[in-house]
Amino acid sequence: MSVQSSVPLATREDLALAYTPGVAQVCEAIADDESLVHELTWVGRAVAVVTDGSAVLGLGNIGPRAAMPVMEGKAVLFKQFGGVDAVPICLDTQDPDEIVAIVTALAPSFGGINLEDISAPRCFDIERRLEATLPIPVFHDDQHGTAIVVLAALRNAARVLGRDLRDLRIVVSGAGAAGVAVTKMLISGGADAGEIVVLDSQGCLHTGRTDLNPEKAALAATTNAGGITGDIANALRGADVLIGVSGGTIGETALAGMSPGGAIFALANPTPEVHPEIAARYAAVVATGRSDFPNQINNVLAFPGIFRGALDAGATRITDGMKVAAANAIAEVLAEGELSTGAIVPSALDPRVAPAVAAAVAAAARRDGVLR
Amino acid sequence: MSVQSSVPLATREDLALAYTPGVAQVCEAIADDESLVHELTWVGRAVAVVTDGSAVLGLGNIGPRAAMPVMEGKAVLFKQFGGVDAVPICLDTQDPDEIVAIVTALAPSFGGINLEDISAPRCFDIERRLEATLPIPVFHDDQHGTAIVVLAALRNAARVLGRDLRDLRIVVSGAGAAGVAVTKMLISGGADAGEIVVLDSQGCLHTGRTDLNPEKAALAATTNAGGITGDIANALRGADVLIGVSGGTIGETALAGMSPGGAIFALANPTPEVHPEIAARYAAVVATGRSDFPNQINNVLAFPGIFRGALDAGATRITDGMKVAAANAIAEVLAEGELSTGAIVPSALDPRVAPAVAAAVAAAARRDGVLR
Repeated sequence: MSVQSSVPLATREDLALAYTPGVAQVCEAIADDESLVHELTWVGRAVAVVTDGSAVLGLGNIGPRAAMPVMEGKAVLFKQFGGVDAVPICLDTQDPDEIVAIVTALAPSFGGINLEDISAPRCFDIERRLEATLPIPVFHDDQHGTAIVVLAALRNAARVLGRDLRDLRIVVSGAGAAGVAVTKMLISGGADAGEIVVLDSQGCLHTGRTDLNPEKAALAATTNAGGITGDIANALRGADVLIGVSGGTIGETALAGMSPGGAIFALANPTPEVHPEIAARYAAVVATGRSDFPNQINNVLAFPGIFRGALDAGATRITDGMKVAAANAIAEVLAEGELSTGAIVPSALDPRVAPAVAAAVAAAARRDGVLR
Repeated sequence: MSVQSSVPLATREDLALAYTPGVAQVCEAIADDESLVHELTWVGRAVAVVTDGSAVLGLGNIGPRAAMPVMEGKAVLFKQFGGVDAVPICLDTQDPDEIVAIVTALAPSFGGINLEDISAPRCFDIERRLEATLPIPVFHDDQHGTAIVVLAALRNAARVLGRDLRDLRIVVSGAGAAGVAVTKMLISGGADAGEIVVLDSQGCLHTGRTDLNPEKAALAATTNAGGITGDIANALRGADVLIGVSGGTIGETALAGMSPGGAIFALANPTPEVHPEIAARYAAVVATGRSDFPNQINNVLAFPGIFRGALDAGATRITDGMKVAAANAIAEVLAEGELSTGAIVPSALDPRVAPAVAAAVAAAARRDGVLR
């Protein structure tokens, strides 16, 4: 990755304009009206990709330096797909208070903050506190990016299967950053909360559990109306959809209890919870996080267009409405004739996706009235 | 300014390499040996240009948003002249402890830190604390960039005037960030400390003053061996060189006391302490900070090559030896035939400067043994 000037700088006059003395006029204009920083500098196009290196890919807590390749790669994808100028920021602290203070202090330099690979449950608190105080969008991609693409994929899976999203019985295996966000997003997108069962490493989340962190407790209160307890075999009995965002393995005995003709999204990377060939025995639609199988659930379908749309609109935050709009836009990129059990989401390289997402997100931002 | 990918990203294979799953191998390599982050990511080429907006150009404390145009312009110059990828970071805090904590936390993301437009005397403390703890170069350009170019210019002025730097009586008007650094740099570069007199707004610094901050007190202890007191007219009586880094105006009555045939550098921007036409009545060599007069003392002659050289060598800090080497390299770009009273420094656009500075700085870093 590299930085480039977007204007030529060859003559003494160019230099006098881009730097002293010409730059002083631009400074004074912004000093008079701070909102002009978005138009008169790169701030309106720039996003910080911020991590503390505590939950990098499937590699875990490898620290800020070892996290840099992911953040740099992400910045390149931001540019490639969304035309967003992203800067990787790897922080040498894992203290949530310090992270909040640092990102707050950095905020004048950027038009948005993409949080990345910060471990749960710290990520929830950090995002919530930053969202509450910053005047620019804050978006934890491991939560919402995944959740948006899962909603898009499930919407299209339902279309392919001739089912209605609100009638599906859904099991979410995993209650970390992605599992919590996926569940909330599915509910925002129209799934029936009572028909969703979420599991953590100790089994089904239900209101009788006393070992839950606040996020899990909130999910237990709104999901699992049937009060299912115990392990994943109990949860999967009669379920239409399994969404794995946990790592680990889910055995065939449990899968055998699912309703036939449903969907399995096994999203752990690089090793899905269920191998796609096995999953195909128990579900009509199978998706993974991998590029070497059909139906790749890839965040790159979401984040470039979401930030592009938010920056274009001058959004101050990313609302649930904007996230649902993004999911719908991703789903609707595929025309009826392109849809099949092996193609429920567009390719990660489909050039139609980011512009469609950006337009939908910008429109939703205007609708939700979250503009500067 | 914009961010660009330095590798193509067009196919599914490119994507799998630049992002998951390929990126995981790069992460693991760095997790095993953190120093690889400089080679395997953009960190080894990237510099943060950090300000708190407290002393921006001559505009003063205009805050982080209004400071952004200067930092963005500086980043563009870094790239243009030094091939350095620089990122503008404008902090929403002016508390020195917070600035030190934030920059420390940001350090894994960058190969160097350029501090910019931070007011004195806070800038001295901030730079000193960061230099003491960070494993990468920290450089406050308002101090050292200016000081390096002044030393280069004075060295060439001495050549033109047939004088020896160590025999010159020098007056430095201004004891802020630039004045303090210029004085130290002249001493490091061979000027006779006892023959330098530094003034702040209250007059000459001397050991009898009780109103001095630690930086000024240190200068009072090493300079002004003659114990000159009072105003600038006293200081200039018989002086060979006047270096103005104060703003304000210096009157002709005071200038008239200077030794004939010397040099006046009136560096305040945009209004020099002495107009060059007036200065020419009292000195043989006149320099300013402006591009519309001869002999522009412009930091852009220094900072791109200094960071380029420091990054190339893998330097962990920027030593006095590296700064003196940079000044000498700038001075020596001008061959004997190019030197004249109207050309004591190269043009800001001279393409020979940054490579010469980079090579000299890298060699000095090796000599001083400050390598990773």
